[in-house]
Amino acid sequence: MPTTIPDKYRDLLDAKSFASLGTVMPDGSPQVTPVWFDWDGKHIRINSARGRAKDKNMRRDPRVSITILDPDNPYRYLEVRGRIVNITEDGADAHIDALSQKYLGKPYPFRRPGEVRVSYDIDPEKTSFMG
Amino acid sequence: MPTTIPDKYRDLLDAKSFASLGTVMPDGSPQVTPVWFDWDGKHIRINSARGRAKDKNMRRDPRVSITILDPDNPYRYLEVRGRIVNITEDGADAHIDALSQKYLGKPYPFRRPGEVRVSYDIDPEKTSFMG
Repeated sequence: MPTTIPDKYRDLLDAKSFASLGTVMPDGSPQVTPVWFDWDGKHIRINSARGRAKDKNMRRDPRVSITILDPDNPYRYLEVRGRIVNITEDGADAHIDALSQKYLGKPYPFRRPGEVRVSYDIDPEKTSFMG
Repeated sequence: MPTTIPDKYRDLLDAKSFASLGTVMPDGSPQVTPVWFDWDGKHIRINSARGRAKDKNMRRDPRVSITILDPDNPYRYLEVRGRIVNITEDGADAHIDALSQKYLGKPYPFRRPGEVRVSYDIDPEKTSFMG
C-alpha cells in the first residue's frame, strides 16, 4: 500500500519551495543539501549531477529524507522519508530544465562543461509535519 | 585544530535564516527537520525538546549536518557537518527564548505543557558551500 501524503500538506508538493535533502555519507553520518524538486503524482523527483556527494550517497544507500517548507509560512513543513527507487540519466537534462522553469522561469542556466545530469525518484514511506 | 567556517560564509552564522538539521535514525536512515540556530563563536547551537525524534537521534548518534540558506539568495548556502559535543537542559529554556527573540522578536510562544527544552552544541568538522 503506498504511503499517502496527508491531504493537508499536498499543496507543498506543488509549491515553489526549496527542499532539504538528507542522504547518508559512506561513514553513516548525515549530509543535507538544498534541492529543487517536483512531484509526478507518486514520487518526489530531484535532480543532481553524476559524481556529486549526494549522487554517490544515493547510489550507495537509497534511504533519504526530504523536507519541504511552506514558502509562505516557515513554521509549516512536510518531511518525507523514503527510498530512491529510480536513478536515471535518461530525460534528466529535460528534467533539470523543467525544474528550472518551475523555480527560475527559464531553462537551467547553471550547467557546467561535461556535467551529466541525473534524475532520482523518491518513493515516500513515512511523513512527518508541523503547522 | 578547530575547523573554521570560511570567512565568505560567516555572515550566515548570524543570519536570521532557518537551518535544516540532518540526524541519523536508529536504522541508519537520515532525518531532516527545520531548526532555529545561533552561533556562540565556536559552536552552532540548536534547541529541541526531550523525547522528540531528533533529540533521541542526537543522543544516540552525535553526528549531524546543518545547512543554512542565505535568506536573500537561496542559491547561496553553507553546510556544516559535525558532532554534538554538549547536550544540556541547563539554560535551555533561556536559550529557546533567545532564539525566539532572534527569529520572532519575542519570547518563545510555542511551549507545550510538560515540555523540557534541551540545548545542543554542534562542533563544526567539515563545511561545504555554494554561491
